[in-house]
Amino acid sequence: MHAEVVAKAEKAREAAAILAAVPTEAKNRALRLIAEALKAQSGKIMEANARDLKLYRESAGFTRALEDRLMLNEERIAGAAGGLLEIAALEDPVGEVTGASLRPSGLQVGQVRTPIGVVGIIYEARPNVTVDAAGLTLKSGNAVILRGGSEALNSNMCLVGIIQEQLRRAELPVASVQLIEDSDRAAARTLMRLNGSVDLLIPRGGPSLIKAVIENATVPVIETGAGNCHLYIDKSAAKDMAVEIALNAKVQRPGVCNAIETLLVHQAAAEEILPAALTKLEQAGVELRGCPRTRSYHKTVKEASEEDWGREYLDLILAVRVVDSIDEAIAHISRYGTMHSEAIVTADYGRARLFLSRVDAAAVYVNASTRFTDGSEFGLGAEMGISTQKLHVRGPMGLKALTSLKYIVYGSGQVR
Amino acid sequence: MHAEVVAKAEKAREAAAILAAVPTEAKNRALRLIAEALKAQSGKIMEANARDLKLYRESAGFTRALEDRLMLNEERIAGAAGGLLEIAALEDPVGEVTGASLRPSGLQVGQVRTPIGVVGIIYEARPNVTVDAAGLTLKSGNAVILRGGSEALNSNMCLVGIIQEQLRRAELPVASVQLIEDSDRAAARTLMRLNGSVDLLIPRGGPSLIKAVIENATVPVIETGAGNCHLYIDKSAAKDMAVEIALNAKVQRPGVCNAIETLLVHQAAAEEILPAALTKLEQAGVELRGCPRTRSYHKTVKEASEEDWGREYLDLILAVRVVDSIDEAIAHISRYGTMHSEAIVTADYGRARLFLSRVDAAAVYVNASTRFTDGSEFGLGAEMGISTQKLHVRGPMGLKALTSLKYIVYGSGQVR
Repeated sequence: MHAEVVAKAEKAREAAAILAAVPTEAKNRALRLIAEALKAQSGKIMEANARDLKLYRESAGFTRALEDRLMLNEERIAGAAGGLLEIAALEDPVGEVTGASLRPSGLQVGQVRTPIGVVGIIYEARPNVTVDAAGLTLKSGNAVILRGGSEALNSNMCLVGIIQEQLRRAELPVASVQLIEDSDRAAARTLMRLNGSVDLLIPRGGPSLIKAVIENATVPVIETGAGNCHLYIDKSAAKDMAVEIALNAKVQRPGVCNAIETLLVHQAAAEEILPAALTKLEQAGVELRGCPRTRSYHKTVKEASEEDWGREYLDLILAVRVVDSIDEAIAHISRYGTMHSEAIVTADYGRARLFLSRVDAAAVYVNASTRFTDGSEFGLGAEMGISTQKLHVRGPMGLKALTSLKYIVYGSGQVR
Repeated sequence: MHAEVVAKAEKAREAAAILAAVPTEAKNRALRLIAEALKAQSGKIMEANARDLKLYRESAGFTRALEDRLMLNEERIAGAAGGLLEIAALEDPVGEVTGASLRPSGLQVGQVRTPIGVVGIIYEARPNVTVDAAGLTLKSGNAVILRGGSEALNSNMCLVGIIQEQLRRAELPVASVQLIEDSDRAAARTLMRLNGSVDLLIPRGGPSLIKAVIENATVPVIETGAGNCHLYIDKSAAKDMAVEIALNAKVQRPGVCNAIETLLVHQAAAEEILPAALTKLEQAGVELRGCPRTRSYHKTVKEASEEDWGREYLDLILAVRVVDSIDEAIAHISRYGTMHSEAIVTADYGRARLFLSRVDAAAVYVNASTRFTDGSEFGLGAEMGISTQKLHVRGPMGLKALTSLKYIVYGSGQVR
């Protein structure tokens, strides 16, 4: 067991016991103080971030994409601060009582929404996640233990320092938000196995991070993020709508999990819609990899291999397949999809309902882009990630996903 | 990977895809058919059970308690069949739509309750669990893979044979309910690691079974069962009520998880209540182990060791401790409890509220016996076990605990 992690988990548990009973307004005040402090101290944050960037640029595994994720500037810091103000404005889920009923025994049995307790988050380079995660866990009354990527250590230490300073000022437990500073794997491994101290662990990042957490964790985990999403253009689809949605779902932001990776087209719609859609996609810079029928409609499409159907490109690449029926489309999604976001474009009422009921994913769409799978778009405010498992929560995880329901029972001396 | 388990999981996944769309009445009909068949074929079931009992009586680890759990008779079979009829009468949770709203984007976003998919259950000797688990998963539209104890193999094979026969008659997938017949640990281990095929694994049984599942599983798990429960008698408690609840919570059925294992008494109530309570408990055959102050009130109490506070006796043994304050009682529960069921007896409104809000457990009681933590008593109908984790569900797991919420999104061409 890693000493720093065990000690911080112990402190987190004490903080969680206090936080669970903190009134909403005290939590909101702390969120506003932190937001102000982040903006006021943006110079200091950017200095720390510059040290991270310098070290990262000298490192072996350097990529431009990661450099961009790692980078903080005035705008991004203001964005993170704004996110905290949005969280402050959201309704506090803690304390809601549901399903209270009087039982034949005379007991009054209800459920009250409570914080989860101690939440661990293991994530990668983006230091914004530090602020978002702290804000969401604080508002929902949870203590959080953050384990960010080693590339962002200076930035994260600076951010958590500012957050803790404001927690102290707001008279909330400083250990409500803690950072694991040791970037050794042993630290993460201990965090994954602290049953009884850590109530929930959320991995946010690439497939290898998620896999490592699922393989090694004994504490409850929510799996997030992998998105091999599909758009299926049905035989009755309106051409313009289909082309526009395909383009948006692939191109508007290709590096995120709710962008599509495969386009499926009903054979009866292929001749009318496919050439136009593929031309537009190509003009937007998308590399196309298709099945033989797709290639017969559009000559510049490369040959797709079996492996392509299972890939999450997160890039301007799209696999394309012509299918004989809606059943074949659903079977393809069921086989290769990651249960994230799946969409149909159709004008047929019955087929829309069929797709909605038969496709097993966190979010299933009719006539809209998969890019809407997002806490803010779904009305949850900010989000902690997108769950791709079925336990506890599917899809965007807002404040409610960071709570649990406890039975409260009022009696007058009942025995069995 | 264990071949039998992998093959059955594959079939379960196909069955689950069909079951998810089966109308309520078809599921209820199958439940009624199974209930009838169990009663009609009770002779055959008891024969199979007699083979299990004979083998078990000759085995090395024989205990009367396990023999009793393993045993099926007419009454128990009728009880299991009756349980299925009760499940048939419960409301089907699948298909419920919640939280639908029109977003600023024009999208209509809602959540529909769906089955989890493929549920695995690893349990011990009681063959009744086979029938209960099959009934609950079937009604909630899930396929189930059962992994019972090796002692009950003949009984379970007979029961699952009857269930599958009736599934066929009801024209539902036979693979909706499957039994792993190989009692080798490798089979259970494979079941724990079939991510993508098994959506949820529920261990039901003793601490070593639960621990093995939590240590080894990579699929999502719901932890169940461990119950180190407490009753706290506050200084303002009514004497008769306190004594009666203490007696009931310990003695009515000591071998179950919602019975109390420790009695905490406020020092200001000890002199009045403790001697009477301990005398009654002793008369009911309870062995008492107490702190020094407890022993000063009642001479026959043995000395409790530190270890006693953490024990789940599941027997007619009770640890007893006098505390100085409600805070000390809550701290004791927080330190030694397993977050199952905790109760206070008090006449003080403010202290009742304090206990309800500060104690972190699946069920927290005021002035009632912890023995009420039960699906049927809480109005859920039958239950699949009692969750002692905070993710997904706390406390008794009814039909709803076997479902998930999927986002469904109705658009008219929206893009971002």
